[in-house]
Amino acid sequence: MAEANLISTPQATPREADAPRDSLVVRFGADQPLRLDSGVELSPFQIAYKTYGQLNADRSNAVLICHALTGDQHVASVHPVTKKNGWWETMVGPGKPIDTERYFVICSNVVSGCMGSSGPSSINPKTGKPYGLDFPVITIRDMVRAQAMLIDHLGIEMLFAVAGGSMGGMQVLQWAQSYPERVFCVLPLACATRHSAQNIAFHEVGRQAVMADPEWRGGRYLTEGTNPRRGLAVARMGAHITYMSDAALHRKFGRKFQDRNNPTFSFDADFEVESYLRYQGSSFVERFDANSYLYLTRAMDYFDLAAEHGGVLANAFRNTQTRFCVVSFTSDWLFPTSESREIVHALNATSARVSFAEIVTDKGHDAFLLDEPELFAIVRGFLDGAAKARGLGIKE
Amino acid sequence: MAEANLISTPQATPREADAPRDSLVVRFGADQPLRLDSGVELSPFQIAYKTYGQLNADRSNAVLICHALTGDQHVASVHPVTKKNGWWETMVGPGKPIDTERYFVICSNVVSGCMGSSGPSSINPKTGKPYGLDFPVITIRDMVRAQAMLIDHLGIEMLFAVAGGSMGGMQVLQWAQSYPERVFCVLPLACATRHSAQNIAFHEVGRQAVMADPEWRGGRYLTEGTNPRRGLAVARMGAHITYMSDAALHRKFGRKFQDRNNPTFSFDADFEVESYLRYQGSSFVERFDANSYLYLTRAMDYFDLAAEHGGVLANAFRNTQTRFCVVSFTSDWLFPTSESREIVHALNATSARVSFAEIVTDKGHDAFLLDEPELFAIVRGFLDGAAKARGLGIKE
Repeated sequence: MAEANLISTPQATPREADAPRDSLVVRFGADQPLRLDSGVELSPFQIAYKTYGQLNADRSNAVLICHALTGDQHVASVHPVTKKNGWWETMVGPGKPIDTERYFVICSNVVSGCMGSSGPSSINPKTGKPYGLDFPVITIRDMVRAQAMLIDHLGIEMLFAVAGGSMGGMQVLQWAQSYPERVFCVLPLACATRHSAQNIAFHEVGRQAVMADPEWRGGRYLTEGTNPRRGLAVARMGAHITYMSDAALHRKFGRKFQDRNNPTFSFDADFEVESYLRYQGSSFVERFDANSYLYLTRAMDYFDLAAEHGGVLANAFRNTQTRFCVVSFTSDWLFPTSESREIVHALNATSARVSFAEIVTDKGHDAFLLDEPELFAIVRGFLDGAAKARGLGIKE
Repeated sequence: MAEANLISTPQATPREADAPRDSLVVRFGADQPLRLDSGVELSPFQIAYKTYGQLNADRSNAVLICHALTGDQHVASVHPVTKKNGWWETMVGPGKPIDTERYFVICSNVVSGCMGSSGPSSINPKTGKPYGLDFPVITIRDMVRAQAMLIDHLGIEMLFAVAGGSMGGMQVLQWAQSYPERVFCVLPLACATRHSAQNIAFHEVGRQAVMADPEWRGGRYLTEGTNPRRGLAVARMGAHITYMSDAALHRKFGRKFQDRNNPTFSFDADFEVESYLRYQGSSFVERFDANSYLYLTRAMDYFDLAAEHGGVLANAFRNTQTRFCVVSFTSDWLFPTSESREIVHALNATSARVSFAEIVTDKGHDAFLLDEPELFAIVRGFLDGAAKARGLGIKE
């Protein structure tokens, strides 16, 4: 493990104005570039992260949580911008399925994110200005490479578990593929080994919405003092529909009008679902960077684990000793169960240890983030079994 | 039938610069306002339309085609702007299922459209400028009221058939509800009696994309010499995804890269599906008006046939003598088969004559516009049977 240029105490990041102060930050200097799939070497760069719980003496109880597209490191603590609870507090915390009284939980902001890790809003050392689109395009594997450097920095050889849903699940799968000897077990939830054409299409619409906003300024909005809020809000609104299900939208909103029982015959938010979506859009832009949105959607689009293995997914996991817990949700039409089954089939083909559950819910893709008792029971049970196998029976 | 102020020969419309010259136009003057659901009386107004085939001596062979959101009156003849074939030439024409050698086919641009019928881009006589958002919000029933006035103008008491898909299908259902004595048979395809919360949500994203474009100018872009092309293109891209199916997108595009086998690590249209969507967006704005897009999506959102009948759909069709041919498509997730079944159940509950077919296809919602031999056979067969019942056995 390299030691040079590592700083692991909370500090101001290059984006001093925006960076959350309540995260840990590790900086990697010129001697430790991030070697990207694009061929570019990103250097210097930094990773912002949070930890919960205590690392045990033999450093065997670490759980890495990988966040989704619009998530961040604040998995189980109040978000510094929104002041809301951590995005996975139902899952992670004292006594929760991912029990911070038992496990040392690490969650880092992905590279190209906007909560303190290096990304398009970071200062480009060559220009002294924010990178904008000069930030290199990153992949899911690049995110995982950076996480592995963070894990090195923390002196952890093998993670007990890596868990996450959606884009987080893609990182989980990439961990299992790239570093099988470094992950005892993995929990890829509501994800797939590649992004479908329809999902790429939805992402492309979101990107076009951002880039159509004249305030985007070719990605130079930070330098030019503008903010493509409206474009990003439209992107978020469209994406948010894909995170829910028709049934859930019907249950929550149906065709209910706002404040009255009749149409206004106008373009106001007449229906409750319109008002809800507008709120989703406008609140999102308060906490998220438009260019990061472009980079992260792109990373998801590029993800295709089988492609590098002759199109045979099983080859990506050949001889793996890692234990897998794959979970899908019946109403998730962004990453339908069929795509989780492909993962399971590939793992079966290589005789991996894999458990699989499809959870019946109408909550759509976002179910992995929501109050799903069956999911909690599955995660708890899987981790209990794996902890026993790993010899983690006693609380630290 | 009122005769005043009726002009039915091709002529310049109020939007002289934009209006297609190859349509018929009927103008309704101050004595014939269009009484809208909003309570507003639209006057004067005009309807642009096309006809195909010959009206028979007893005026009993007229078929009204209702177009979808982005369609127009050019159902079976070259589009004046795009120079492409009519949007339903597979279905309508000599020897086609809706046979113009047998039937007199009428297709009119809906009120609030942008191909010659009065809409937000028409000149507001009170100001001498384009209406913009001062055009009254219209409903599906308003569209049908205007069509009924056109049918009056043409001296047709009873239509042999009314047919259409999607928003066209909504109009078809509205015809059957509003004027049961004036329609012998109807063919509502790929539609529903109300717009779902998810569909309203998708429409709202499209509207927000248009309205987020600074060139939209609060709807006054025609007066101010701007054009919200980018916003409208984003709206179209998003909507277009909903017209297809995951399976069709996978079959057509999969994860294929443009021109090469590797990612460019950029935000260019790397994947074929991105390039396809961008083309759909940019070509659409050449032929469509942004405000019309707002009005038409709004009309669809408001549509709810049962709502006015105590929530009991069957009451909307009580004692109807009209024959129904309801068609859905297995991969249509915008108007899934379950919603067509609701129509059928309601019609069964009122002992109506109804045939129903769900066609197996991966082409999604747009299947009704595409080469679907089973659809053609169903439409042809249903019309043949109805024509026999109507005494239309001999070709005119």
